Amino acid sequence: MSLILDLADIISLFPDAHTTGNFRSGKISGISSLLEAKEGDLSFLGNPKYRKHLEQTRAGILLVPLDEPVLPKDGQLFIYLENPSAGLAYVCRLLEEKIFPPSPVGVHPSAFIEPTAEVDPTASVGPFCYIGENSKVGRNTTLGSHCHLGHNVTLRDHSQLHPGVKILPHCEIGNYVTLNAGVVIGSEGYGFDQSDQGHQKIPHLGKVIVEDHVEIGANTCIDRARFDQTRIGHGTKIDNLVQIGHNVKIGRDCLIVAQVGISGSVILEDEVIVGGQAGFAGHIKVGKGAKIAGQAGITKNVNPGEFLKGNPALPFHLSQRISVLQRKLPDLFNRFAQEKMND
Amino acid sequence: MSLILDLADIISLFPDAHTTGNFRSGKISGISSLLEAKEGDLSFLGNPKYRKHLEQTRAGILLVPLDEPVLPKDGQLFIYLENPSAGLAYVCRLLEEKIFPPSPVGVHPSAFIEPTAEVDPTASVGPFCYIGENSKVGRNTTLGSHCHLGHNVTLRDHSQLHPGVKILPHCEIGNYVTLNAGVVIGSEGYGFDQSDQGHQKIPHLGKVIVEDHVEIGANTCIDRARFDQTRIGHGTKIDNLVQIGHNVKIGRDCLIVAQVGISGSVILEDEVIVGGQAGFAGHIKVGKGAKIAGQAGITKNVNPGEFLKGNPALPFHLSQRISVLQRKLPDLFNRFAQEKMND
Amino acid sequence: MSLILDLADIISLFPDAHTTGNFRSGKISGISSLLEAKEGDLSFLGNPKYRKHLEQTRAGILLVPLDEPVLPKDGQLFIYLENPSAGLAYVCRLLEEKIFPPSPVGVHPSAFIEPTAEVDPTASVGPFCYIGENSKVGRNTTLGSHCHLGHNVTLRDHSQLHPGVKILPHCEIGNYVTLNAGVVIGSEGYGFDQSDQGHQKIPHLGKVIVEDHVEIGANTCIDRARFDQTRIGHGTKIDNLVQIGHNVKIGRDCLIVAQVGISGSVILEDEVIVGGQAGFAGHIKVGKGAKIAGQAGITKNVNPGEFLKGNPALPFHLSQRISVLQRKLPDLFNRFAQEKMND
Repeated sequence: MSLILDLADIISLFPDAHTTGNFRSGKISGISSLLEAKEGDLSFLGNPKYRKHLEQTRAGILLVPLDEPVLPKDGQLFIYLENPSAGLAYVCRLLEEKIFPPSPVGVHPSAFIEPTAEVDPTASVGPFCYIGENSKVGRNTTLGSHCHLGHNVTLRDHSQLHPGVKILPHCEIGNYVTLNAGVVIGSEGYGFDQSDQGHQKIPHLGKVIVEDHVEIGANTCIDRARFDQTRIGHGTKIDNLVQIGHNVKIGRDCLIVAQVGISGSVILEDEVIVGGQAGFAGHIKVGKGAKIAGQAGITKNVNPGEFLKGNPALPFHLSQRISVLQRKLPDLFNRFAQEKMND
Repeated sequence: MSLILDLADIISLFPDAHTTGNFRSGKISGISSLLEAKEGDLSFLGNPKYRKHLEQTRAGILLVPLDEPVLPKDGQLFIYLENPSAGLAYVCRLLEEKIFPPSPVGVHPSAFIEPTAEVDPTASVGPFCYIGENSKVGRNTTLGSHCHLGHNVTLRDHSQLHPGVKILPHCEIGNYVTLNAGVVIGSEGYGFDQSDQGHQKIPHLGKVIVEDHVEIGANTCIDRARFDQTRIGHGTKIDNLVQIGHNVKIGRDCLIVAQVGISGSVILEDEVIVGGQAGFAGHIKVGKGAKIAGQAGITKNVNPGEFLKGNPALPFHLSQRISVLQRKLPDLFNRFAQEKMND
Repeated sequence: MSLILDLADIISLFPDAHTTGNFRSGKISGISSLLEAKEGDLSFLGNPKYRKHLEQTRAGILLVPLDEPVLPKDGQLFIYLENPSAGLAYVCRLLEEKIFPPSPVGVHPSAFIEPTAEVDPTASVGPFCYIGENSKVGRNTTLGSHCHLGHNVTLRDHSQLHPGVKILPHCEIGNYVTLNAGVVIGSEGYGFDQSDQGHQKIPHLGKVIVEDHVEIGANTCIDRARFDQTRIGHGTKIDNLVQIGHNVKIGRDCLIVAQVGISGSVILEDEVIVGGQAGFAGHIKVGKGAKIAGQAGITKNVNPGEFLKGNPALPFHLSQRISVLQRKLPDLFNRFAQEKMND
């Protein structure tokens, strides 16, 4: 974090707050937890169980509860708030605006927009972007440099595409969507028919629909559907380097951690959580609220709320128990061998 | 799929076919299986075992066999064909041309081509492409936006590079090759010598050769060889986010599913099939027609035709059997403990 | 490797070396091991234990030790050197300069540099690069085509960015760093707070620091920190398609093979080696010199020097032993069943 907040910025966020003490340096060097904070840092007491750290902290500014009995040390400033955690969120938002100022509205002179494309005047299109025929970019949506929109792509409002995002023809991106750098939306599905002349490609004529409030991590790839749609549901958050195959349907508010692989036609219902590097065979249905541990291999349908682990995947506690017993296999084999000798 | 086919388009594909019934909407809304089809959809009976679905389907247009006894319902049109599946393929091809019209021939004005590069006049080079010195682009080959060809790269004929493909110097791409968005061909191999001053990079002076009819998925990476070639054999199909190390040789007509990792100097003979997220240690040879299950870890040579699973990988049926027995470990340990008590 | 070295180039590298024999073709077709070399190739005897291959090799030029008793065959040239392996390194360096000539110094006319950015006059900025406000590119640093530097990015000296590298705002890249094509540095961290309105993004306000002599493989992603820094230590080498989460700290001289996933806030001390596709849960500390086998799943702290394998990860030898015993489970269950019958 760069040194770009000063005390006045913080004070102006909480004009009615009571304060005690003094903050010497004037510039805030960072935000940190109580124990890790350095002299110029801002910290906060969000949870009373960390009060013991308050006396040890070296932070220069602290957001503390209204009834905080501990007093600031020399060179420390306490700001008393009803909800210090919410206060921290305000500080972060202010900081975010300073660290990542909004991109300038309008189309960068180096970008190339086909005449039939429509870019809202409040949108921001970065350097070297290409926007294909009949594509639409909505209000307050931002494209970083080197983005590609094929023809007939729709981006709705308030979305952010980081540099180098590629959205292939006919795909649709909702409102308040974040696509990190290098994301590919609408790549060809992986499907081939066997024939005497080798594998024949099955054309993939569908699209990808990304609903509102979805976030997708860097270099993640989402394939278009064979005929209809690959769909990422409202509020779902996908991490970096994830693979999502053709015709996959992902529900609302799922969490999919980095490097997960989801094969074609898999259905994830709402609120499913998938740990990193887990994999799903094709045509599986995963019920609402299921949890899949990292690196698990899922080859069968999963019931709502189930928590699976391992490959082949088993219920979490059974999997844990088997892992413990596996460590005892050497002992079991030894004892078995000994008994045979004793017979 | 967008609404861009109408009944006349379909009829003109099968001018000699007998038809019965009527299709009301005129516009075709999609292609779908019998059970999933909606009113405006086209569907087909490719396999007699699905005849029972024919009476239930809501599809508006159906491709059916010549001898189909079931009659269309009101608002349904049947088109009688010798081979309905082949008929569907014709429909898909027509649709594909409409959904993905060919890119305009010629070099986009925003592209930059070095004077020593040769681009065939029938090729299409998209916006913001860079083509390096002495590189060649063959007949009817298409480059999407933001592609990079380093110097001395060769692309042969009828190939398609989606946006953002990067091909590093000296690599060679054959005919009828598809490279999806973000593919990297010819990245530096991962090889280092230990020394007192830390890891010293081993220069990688070879190239990558991609043979005819290969397809490579989005954001997949293929490293150049140390001295000679990393090679992807004719007709092999590689999915998204796959890693292929330096000096790997992959034979003809292999299938390599998403997120597979193949370490340096591995040899895959022809027709090997590798499930998603499987990994190969370096310098392994995998025999012709071998099958590797998803997430398997291969650390030894594999015989032709073998089917392996798990990590460490075992023959498929043994692996399955051990998985079943692992679930019984708690019971085995219990019974063993009980016997000891009974002794 | 292309035919771009001839005999005179090689001889001029070793002006004082004694030579015997004759090399017919004049052009060198490649570099290869003794057994794999073809007629036009250069090979070398780096280790006396391969002397038996010297009589069989078809290589046309050989780097051999000063005291080599075997004599060249007709059409072979021997160059006698104190250290043939070091000699090979000289040949490779010469070849590297010919195969990958340095990019032209200066800014390509198609690049876009913000007026507040500073590019050293000895740097090379390729086609369609974008360099954001207040960013700095140091001496002899090279950017391939289509690179993106956000605002306030620092690249120090002698570093190389291959095409399509994206470095997001405020990140810092050291000296002698190599970033392969498609690398993303500084993507948003994956962190969300649960709320009644779904997952709320936690802003990530920190940066990524890549220290000197680091190499990072194609399409690898490194997320920015929440407040401070994600850090890649001096001399660490990272392969392709690796995921490194927010706030991760990686020490000096680590080796991280392809497709590894490292979750948020993990600490890798110096000289840790991680095999391909291994994964780390969040907030783990891995001690100095630890080794993690490919595909391992690490969910707990790892002691310095430990060698772990499997998921759940176990000490390497225990893991190997358990794998052997698992193969014997069918036999154990059979014998156990039989004993019960005999009772």
